[in-house]
Amino acid sequence: MAKKVFLTEDEIPRQWYNIQADMPTPLLPPLHPGTGQPVTPDLLTPIFPMSLIEQEVSQERWIDIPDEVMDAYTIWRPSPLYRAERFEKLLDAPVKIYFKNEGVSPAGSHKPNTAVPQAYYNKMAGVKRIATETGAGQWGSALAFAGKLFGIQIKVYMVKVSYEQKPYRRLMMMTWGADCVASPTNTTEAGRRILALDPNSPGSLGIAISEAVEDASGREDTNYSLGSVLNHVMLHQTVIGLEALKQMNKIGEYPDVVVGCAGGGSNFAGLAFPFIRDKIAGKKMQVIAAEPTSCPTMTRGPFAYDFGDTDKRTPLLAMHTLGHDFVPASIHAGGLRYHGMAPLVSQLVLDGLIEPRAYHNLDTFKAGVMWAQTEGFIPAPETNHAIAAVMEVARQAKEEGKEKTILFNWSGHGLVDLAAYDAYLGGKLTDHILPQEDIDRALAAIAAHPVPPKR
Amino acid sequence: MAKKVFLTEDEIPRQWYNIQADMPTPLLPPLHPGTGQPVTPDLLTPIFPMSLIEQEVSQERWIDIPDEVMDAYTIWRPSPLYRAERFEKLLDAPVKIYFKNEGVSPAGSHKPNTAVPQAYYNKMAGVKRIATETGAGQWGSALAFAGKLFGIQIKVYMVKVSYEQKPYRRLMMMTWGADCVASPTNTTEAGRRILALDPNSPGSLGIAISEAVEDASGREDTNYSLGSVLNHVMLHQTVIGLEALKQMNKIGEYPDVVVGCAGGGSNFAGLAFPFIRDKIAGKKMQVIAAEPTSCPTMTRGPFAYDFGDTDKRTPLLAMHTLGHDFVPASIHAGGLRYHGMAPLVSQLVLDGLIEPRAYHNLDTFKAGVMWAQTEGFIPAPETNHAIAAVMEVARQAKEEGKEKTILFNWSGHGLVDLAAYDAYLGGKLTDHILPQEDIDRALAAIAAHPVPPKR
Repeated sequence: MAKKVFLTEDEIPRQWYNIQADMPTPLLPPLHPGTGQPVTPDLLTPIFPMSLIEQEVSQERWIDIPDEVMDAYTIWRPSPLYRAERFEKLLDAPVKIYFKNEGVSPAGSHKPNTAVPQAYYNKMAGVKRIATETGAGQWGSALAFAGKLFGIQIKVYMVKVSYEQKPYRRLMMMTWGADCVASPTNTTEAGRRILALDPNSPGSLGIAISEAVEDASGREDTNYSLGSVLNHVMLHQTVIGLEALKQMNKIGEYPDVVVGCAGGGSNFAGLAFPFIRDKIAGKKMQVIAAEPTSCPTMTRGPFAYDFGDTDKRTPLLAMHTLGHDFVPASIHAGGLRYHGMAPLVSQLVLDGLIEPRAYHNLDTFKAGVMWAQTEGFIPAPETNHAIAAVMEVARQAKEEGKEKTILFNWSGHGLVDLAAYDAYLGGKLTDHILPQEDIDRALAAIAAHPVPPKR
Repeated sequence: MAKKVFLTEDEIPRQWYNIQADMPTPLLPPLHPGTGQPVTPDLLTPIFPMSLIEQEVSQERWIDIPDEVMDAYTIWRPSPLYRAERFEKLLDAPVKIYFKNEGVSPAGSHKPNTAVPQAYYNKMAGVKRIATETGAGQWGSALAFAGKLFGIQIKVYMVKVSYEQKPYRRLMMMTWGADCVASPTNTTEAGRRILALDPNSPGSLGIAISEAVEDASGREDTNYSLGSVLNHVMLHQTVIGLEALKQMNKIGEYPDVVVGCAGGGSNFAGLAFPFIRDKIAGKKMQVIAAEPTSCPTMTRGPFAYDFGDTDKRTPLLAMHTLGHDFVPASIHAGGLRYHGMAPLVSQLVLDGLIEPRAYHNLDTFKAGVMWAQTEGFIPAPETNHAIAAVMEVARQAKEEGKEKTILFNWSGHGLVDLAAYDAYLGGKLTDHILPQEDIDRALAAIAAHPVPPKR
């Protein structure tokens, strides 16, 4: 059997899959940050093109991928599906492990899957400039790449701790012509407010979002763009799972277990949603979302209405959250340090269709090094969480003596995260478990917010 | 037409191509460093397994690839062939540009193509440890990866200037379990001799080779391994060109121009030799080897007998050389800073089958940034030399109004070389043209060596 399953470019899906058409419980509406009433599109038009706002609320199952986006996708798509036979051998468990390699994109992760259509729709709407935030830099570099393809200037507010830990992602953005600054900055009100409280603030995604939204709100030529969390982002990423379905089908396989790491939720959703569609229709399978114990949004955060950003500028979203002013520990998996979780993923967790699990920092790096030393490719620290989950599933399969086929999303490579491996191999990393008082504080912080109705 | 041409794993060639079987002028024999007489295998057995020595001198056209090597190759091979339509559009010239993407390997370059068989043959010979040198770190990281696959401990002497400029490649080696030190070290006689002359020596490949050879010669359990220059290395790399021939054939294309960058010659030879076979048989085509003006081995160095290393430990090889004690300018394309050139490539240059061209440092980075901003993928600084050559060919085609199909080797990505792009974009890089007195010094340094006969 082939270790790699390729598709031709003709086999890239021509439509994205919108799980809103199939969810057993419909999404709760986002609420206006001022009035607490369901938002209307006019609140969003200053920062998003109408085409993306329409995708955000669409109930259509299939949404066409524009030709220009298809053309840009072919720069790196279809991505290969691999079987990890060497890693299987190492684990010595009755499992087959397949993974979708999203590290083959120019930015080295899944992020360009949505960066490209977002840049395209903004271009079509006449937008000249996009402001955004980035954690580990994966999103910022992806949008820099996509912006260059469509001639849009990109401004990136990068979480300061990552800006300092990960100079290479900033250099990628620069090479693609984008402007990248360490957040919090003193160029926005939101940034200045944070710096006044803590001049040494390491930053957070919530703060960086506030800065980027403020930037975009204040300029006619500028829109805002988000690399995760929102429905249209999950939508664009489904190209991963739709390709994977075709690839598994080609070799007569179907997964018993689907795994992804989840920070805002997009690489996880991208792989998992097309499979969850089958699960909703009755297919038996386990779907696991892996998060860090230091930022356990789904496993320990309440499902509540909360802001997407620290400065309370975004609509209130019904989601699992650790509170909009949560500042996570400075672990190296910067992409998994967001206080909230995509409302679509959160609702599916609530409905029991997704099983969230949290993993310790050191266990994830141990998994990543084991992977690199057998399969060769060095995974991103975020991806290591998915690999840790795969190892747990394999262990359980061995204990139960049950054969299992696992499919997981290898969301990106770690070649620009090697400082993290250096710290791990040098014994400088520690585990972080979020203290209970932080959870209590999160609950207190959102106590005044509207409460999602029990359904 | 598809932009990418994939092969299945069944289509990976099962044999390497040995150009020695087809060369119009046979190679001159390597000479013993002491006696000046042709070397016999017993000089090499202390540091190389017999299987590789046999490949070094073989006149067989096809050499079988062992099953274990085929299996490891499938971790990343077959590599995709891409058409660079966006770059073509930017150049606005009557050219089609195809490239073989060797950046898809775990180490991010073509180097694992020979690291894997070298590790395998050493394993078969019972070797426990391999010492080697590395310039930019591409070879060292590739051998670290390959060593881990076959359970061999790897010790890498890394040229000091690259060790400092490129911490990420060292971290890759560490992640794959190898031991990497900055050369010159004070742990070898060769290193101590250099440090006595210049405690701040930036190192060179020639020095690092001396250290690694000394290490391997002094230990029973240790062999030596070279990532370029030697015949068996060129042989292993031909898997690139053999795949490319199949891929071009699949889409009914054949190149008018074949291009590669050349430091020691291996990525260039890997792509070009299977095509040069056709050229020897009468097919018309241009084959260009691109090197830096700061290390113009083929364009300005004499064809002479010279040592492969600074400390005169290796056999004398008949090759283009700038002298075994040449210390090149600290440009960022560390893989192109070797004083010599593969004897096979050198002989084919002499026979007029390969056209060498030299490119300025700044022009190569300009080419690389143009590439990154259209095709997305950020090239290695070495690869930028090939892209600069492609641009020159395209310019000429436009001037002449002639349609041309170009195929070049995209030898690796630049994601761990981003500090070089930072320097370039920040205006901190300069051009280096080797002064004539350095050429004169090279001629003087090799004046006492045996002279290759005119043929």
